[in-house]
Amino acid sequence: MTQGESRGRFIAFEGGEGAGKSTQARLLAQALRGRGLDVVTTREPGGTLGAEALRALLLDHALNWGPRAEALLFAAARSDHVEQLIEPALASGRWVVCDRFVDSSRAYQGGAGGIGDDDVLALHAIGSGGLLPDLTIMIELDPAAATARAMARDGDAADRIGAKADEYHAAVRDRFALLADQSPGRFARIDGHGSAGDVHDRIMQSLAPMLDSA
Amino acid sequence: MTQGESRGRFIAFEGGEGAGKSTQARLLAQALRGRGLDVVTTREPGGTLGAEALRALLLDHALNWGPRAEALLFAAARSDHVEQLIEPALASGRWVVCDRFVDSSRAYQGGAGGIGDDDVLALHAIGSGGLLPDLTIMIELDPAAATARAMARDGDAADRIGAKADEYHAAVRDRFALLADQSPGRFARIDGHGSAGDVHDRIMQSLAPMLDSA
Repeated sequence: MTQGESRGRFIAFEGGEGAGKSTQARLLAQALRGRGLDVVTTREPGGTLGAEALRALLLDHALNWGPRAEALLFAAARSDHVEQLIEPALASGRWVVCDRFVDSSRAYQGGAGGIGDDDVLALHAIGSGGLLPDLTIMIELDPAAATARAMARDGDAADRIGAKADEYHAAVRDRFALLADQSPGRFARIDGHGSAGDVHDRIMQSLAPMLDSA
Repeated sequence: MTQGESRGRFIAFEGGEGAGKSTQARLLAQALRGRGLDVVTTREPGGTLGAEALRALLLDHALNWGPRAEALLFAAARSDHVEQLIEPALASGRWVVCDRFVDSSRAYQGGAGGIGDDDVLALHAIGSGGLLPDLTIMIELDPAAATARAMARDGDAADRIGAKADEYHAAVRDRFALLADQSPGRFARIDGHGSAGDVHDRIMQSLAPMLDSA
């Protein structure tokens, strides 16, 4: 960070599969760059060499991770990501737009996976000093629309979604909603229905206060 | 576990590099098998498919893990090892002899690596329910003898030891000694000087009470 330059902002996208997070993260990064901001886009699990290696292990079904090992692996990948990419970028004044962050662990491992939210937060405190986004954009979409969108994108995603029971997806959705209710100042709940442009416009509206203060 | 069969015993070996842990674990397993016990030998990090994959990532210097990510990865590997190998073996009445366990994390990441012991234990509680060995055999050897023994075994080990400062090894040694002092009932401190047979005899003496009760 050069003298007098301010810390960047950290914006995370959250929501179920097929909600449109990746598309909206890309559109947001373009819009921010159009305003002259220096933006890093990244994703979880992943974003660094080590974390991408862990992503590959997490997605390897042959390894058959239990929920506890899985929660530790997500926290390890996040620790590497925060230490080696996110924190240095923010410190040098760059904005970071991240596809999923700790709230995904809270919703998936903590909500649907049977690990307590306290444990997920304890792992995040040890691994990443408890870093939270300045703003978490949660895209909400009804299940049928999310599945249709995921299927249009790639068959693998649809398989992955289809392999989990409806109750699983409902538990994730409920946990996301609960997290947003608990921290209204940090979350922007965005209606994910309609065209990508429509959703992007809603997101830019929710960002207005942050952009005015930047 | 068949009806009426008792839970197996969990014995871990600890100590610095070159202390003779692997040799002594092998000799102990042979001796226990000679008494008709069903023994599993394993090691950390590793012991299962997932944990061995994590071991490879931990040893990959290009990934440059920070101490927090490293502590999480050791805990993740241990969680997989406990859930998929150690607990099922103990439950079925088998004895488990393990080369390193959680006390290595406490001494290396917690003692020399700058992560607090409370955090190492918190990770172990979340990942593995806080499982501790029934007996931890700590082999103590003065630094010059340990380095000579490691060099005789393989040059890589000697390189690895040599790359760390003397203060690092001293911090690990001091932390191991402190852990043993704190839990005298769980630790057997074994003089590691002399021949492998001499050290093995000392270990068998320290195991007499456990063998008498088995």
